Amino acid sequence: MSRSFPLNAWYAAAWDSDIKHELFARTICGKKMVFYRKSDGAVVALEDACWHRLLPLSMGRLDGDEVVCGYHGLVFDGSGRCTRMPSQETLNPSACVPVFPVVERHRFVWVWPGDPALADPALIPDLHWNHDPAWAGDGRTIHAKCNYRLVVDNLMDLTHETFVHGSSIGNRAVAEAPFHVTHGDRTATVTRWMEGIEAPPFWAGQIFSARGYRGPVDRWQIIRFEAPCTVAIDVGVAPAGSGAPQGDRSQGVNGFVLNTITPETEKTCHYFWAFVRNYMTHEQKLTTDLREGVRRIFGEDERVLEAQQEAIDAHPEHKFYNLNIDAGSMWSRRLIDKMIAAESTAAPVVTPLRRAG
Amino acid sequence: MSRSFPLNAWYAAAWDSDIKHELFARTICGKKMVFYRKSDGAVVALEDACWHRLLPLSMGRLDGDEVVCGYHGLVFDGSGRCTRMPSQETLNPSACVPVFPVVERHRFVWVWPGDPALADPALIPDLHWNHDPAWAGDGRTIHAKCNYRLVVDNLMDLTHETFVHGSSIGNRAVAEAPFHVTHGDRTATVTRWMEGIEAPPFWAGQIFSARGYRGPVDRWQIIRFEAPCTVAIDVGVAPAGSGAPQGDRSQGVNGFVLNTITPETEKTCHYFWAFVRNYMTHEQKLTTDLREGVRRIFGEDERVLEAQQEAIDAHPEHKFYNLNIDAGSMWSRRLIDKMIAAESTAAPVVTPLRRAG
Amino acid sequence: MSRSFPLNAWYAAAWDSDIKHELFARTICGKKMVFYRKSDGAVVALEDACWHRLLPLSMGRLDGDEVVCGYHGLVFDGSGRCTRMPSQETLNPSACVPVFPVVERHRFVWVWPGDPALADPALIPDLHWNHDPAWAGDGRTIHAKCNYRLVVDNLMDLTHETFVHGSSIGNRAVAEAPFHVTHGDRTATVTRWMEGIEAPPFWAGQIFSARGYRGPVDRWQIIRFEAPCTVAIDVGVAPAGSGAPQGDRSQGVNGFVLNTITPETEKTCHYFWAFVRNYMTHEQKLTTDLREGVRRIFGEDERVLEAQQEAIDAHPEHKFYNLNIDAGSMWSRRLIDKMIAAESTAAPVVTPLRRAG
Repeated sequence: MSRSFPLNAWYAAAWDSDIKHELFARTICGKKMVFYRKSDGAVVALEDACWHRLLPLSMGRLDGDEVVCGYHGLVFDGSGRCTRMPSQETLNPSACVPVFPVVERHRFVWVWPGDPALADPALIPDLHWNHDPAWAGDGRTIHAKCNYRLVVDNLMDLTHETFVHGSSIGNRAVAEAPFHVTHGDRTATVTRWMEGIEAPPFWAGQIFSARGYRGPVDRWQIIRFEAPCTVAIDVGVAPAGSGAPQGDRSQGVNGFVLNTITPETEKTCHYFWAFVRNYMTHEQKLTTDLREGVRRIFGEDERVLEAQQEAIDAHPEHKFYNLNIDAGSMWSRRLIDKMIAAESTAAPVVTPLRRAG
Repeated sequence: MSRSFPLNAWYAAAWDSDIKHELFARTICGKKMVFYRKSDGAVVALEDACWHRLLPLSMGRLDGDEVVCGYHGLVFDGSGRCTRMPSQETLNPSACVPVFPVVERHRFVWVWPGDPALADPALIPDLHWNHDPAWAGDGRTIHAKCNYRLVVDNLMDLTHETFVHGSSIGNRAVAEAPFHVTHGDRTATVTRWMEGIEAPPFWAGQIFSARGYRGPVDRWQIIRFEAPCTVAIDVGVAPAGSGAPQGDRSQGVNGFVLNTITPETEKTCHYFWAFVRNYMTHEQKLTTDLREGVRRIFGEDERVLEAQQEAIDAHPEHKFYNLNIDAGSMWSRRLIDKMIAAESTAAPVVTPLRRAG
Repeated sequence: MSRSFPLNAWYAAAWDSDIKHELFARTICGKKMVFYRKSDGAVVALEDACWHRLLPLSMGRLDGDEVVCGYHGLVFDGSGRCTRMPSQETLNPSACVPVFPVVERHRFVWVWPGDPALADPALIPDLHWNHDPAWAGDGRTIHAKCNYRLVVDNLMDLTHETFVHGSSIGNRAVAEAPFHVTHGDRTATVTRWMEGIEAPPFWAGQIFSARGYRGPVDRWQIIRFEAPCTVAIDVGVAPAGSGAPQGDRSQGVNGFVLNTITPETEKTCHYFWAFVRNYMTHEQKLTTDLREGVRRIFGEDERVLEAQQEAIDAHPEHKFYNLNIDAGSMWSRRLIDKMIAAESTAAPVVTPLRRAG
């Protein structure tokens, strides 16, 4: 099986609050990594295997800003260099573990598993709503037992809301409304407007709470994919005819479903999501209620995604047909494939530099 | 590993009462199927994978007599044809899932996983005792972790009763009594008479309850195999010398152990069994007692069969020796092999027709 | 993956007390064996698979000194020969199961999985302290999920005590003290003296209990490896300057950590260990306390060893670097490799003789 993800990309490794001054193990794109925060607040990501006998460094302990291996006590600093060995004064010059570039942004810790020389922070996906004070919300991490692209497919076509989430955000309008798809070099956007419809239960509740409005709505879903695995979805409803499709959302309620899905292995992924809104931003209870509500809805997706992965494993030769509704996910797949192809035809990916951090 | 079962055969998929107006998933001969009963009572068997993204249809729901996929809402009718897709009017002409021929008979739902054109109901194995009013009884389904032929082997040589079931139906007479084997094109029969013996605990109880008789018995076991996987065993005892071996069973008690064993995978099977009798047929308590008694006895076999499968897996190259007692199972294996060979030398098996049901 | 252990060697299969007049199944060097003790006390080891249908003989029962298979009742004697079959008078001359040479010594049952003609009891590793009346102690069996050589590596370099067992037997002195390594044809010895040091908690307690001494100590660790998998470690402390390094241990306390590690599969092993001492040998409570204390310490190693095996599996191509501290384990690996190489270049290993016992 060939690799289904590029290595030269920023991937969310954890929420910022997950990483403290202690060892935190996580596998990203098939690479075992250990993360910790140094005294100065900077986050370090090292390969989670001691240079000497491969014991996971995450089984050891921190000594100041250095990691002590839990087997023979070799010590590595935050650049991956070995600074101490038992019973010997001279350290082998090769004694170091790979270090991965790390940046904190938009409340996530991003790591670059590929060639460190290419790790340009400007390439970090745009999820700024997650820390923008005009927006409030919260999210969670799901460990999903499927290839990360199945989650992307799921998000690129919200038709499934009607069938998977019928009791909350789905209704027949979603499956029936027309949509159009545009794309750039690294992005693809699916836009769907459902005008003059009855709001589904979730949105009916939100617009009534926020605006006291009951009645037909214009609903929008603007799904923006940024390769290889980030999907920000602009969602909301406004009173029907109040001008939202034309750009005036002032009487409506608007949220963003922020999603970034990091491959763990070919068949598992870390799915980070948040739901943020720009109305009633100071209502802490609403933040919690929305997070728990979305969590329940995403649990419905999880069961579907795992069953789909099992079915794909059982039919390795299956040729898939695409429907109209698959236009968005076809574009996301194409952009991912382009990134992977670029890595194999260009100069071979360099092994992560040691002491590059 | 080559396939150990023919595809062009009827296999019991479930007890008739297992299939209701709801989705029921079961794998038969390596094929995932979903079963349901339509409003008119007819049973449908479809491949359990949506044409679009392979999600098991059994994760969806019935809408009338049609199945709605639980992901994107494609709808399939009982012939496997897609009748609705989200967001599009024109349906892809290829949009259908394979359908498998189904017949209900002898209290089982039979399915034909091979070429539908060959699915002749006259080929359904004879288990008529299971619904004949002259016989009463009940049975169960065992999910056994072994190749189906190991269950057939087990049934074709009842010598094992002495060693596996010593406390109920086994005694030394079974292992010592002579037997003879005959065979036809699709059947093999092992006949064993044990004349003038002490009845084993199970049969001593039955003949005393039914006939008030205590004393030596003539005991019979007539094992009839019908390829590829059905074994009906005519069993009973009569007072010694009362003429049973010559054909007069009127003073004895007679039962049938009905068995049909459906491959699930190469290493697992669905084992359907029933025990029926032609004495005290109105005693409901006896029916329950017998079913639970046989269930306990078959539990002893299950442990042996699973251990045997594990041992075979650990010795893939092992050449087996056959003893006299293996004559019956050698014939059953030969008849199975003939069915499999016929499939590979004749025209290749056609992929199940879509909309053949 | 090529085999990592020689077959022509004695391996501890069990503690002597584990083997009674009942069937006991254990896999040794990838071979499933069934052990039992005959009426005369002799231990028998047979392949744990019936000649007829491979059912594990350990699922059957003993009838006197013979094993009755739990499926069809074939009977095998302690030499592996079949002595009875159901329904037939003439026994197939080939009907026997392989038998493995067995010797009881040093409180262990030793088995030879290779060519029985080479099974010379003089080759049994020296663990005589385990039954010598001058020494008292007890031990346990650990089922470790790692290749047996990782346990040997662990024992050949006690530097790890400092990092894995810091609260009991480890202190910085172990990681810092010099050591030297010698070797013979089948043995390698690592000697480390730590003179005038503070005793670690464990030994401080022992020498105070036994000799009433508190104060600095001379500590020794003399690790003797006997290929392929036995490690006897002479350990102890004596008052600093009382002459222990020069040979007078009379004022000190001395123990032996006895270890023999039997491959089960390539990735699992049976690790037999005991701790014996030559002081306060009649204190039963101390024997129990020491055994439980060592058991807790070895539990710390177990977690490290399993994690190391997983890391090796995840990096199959990894080339390991060796440090000074690895000198002992490099010699043990070299002696093991020599034994394995001898088996492949000499005449091919003969299949275990049937009836060789």
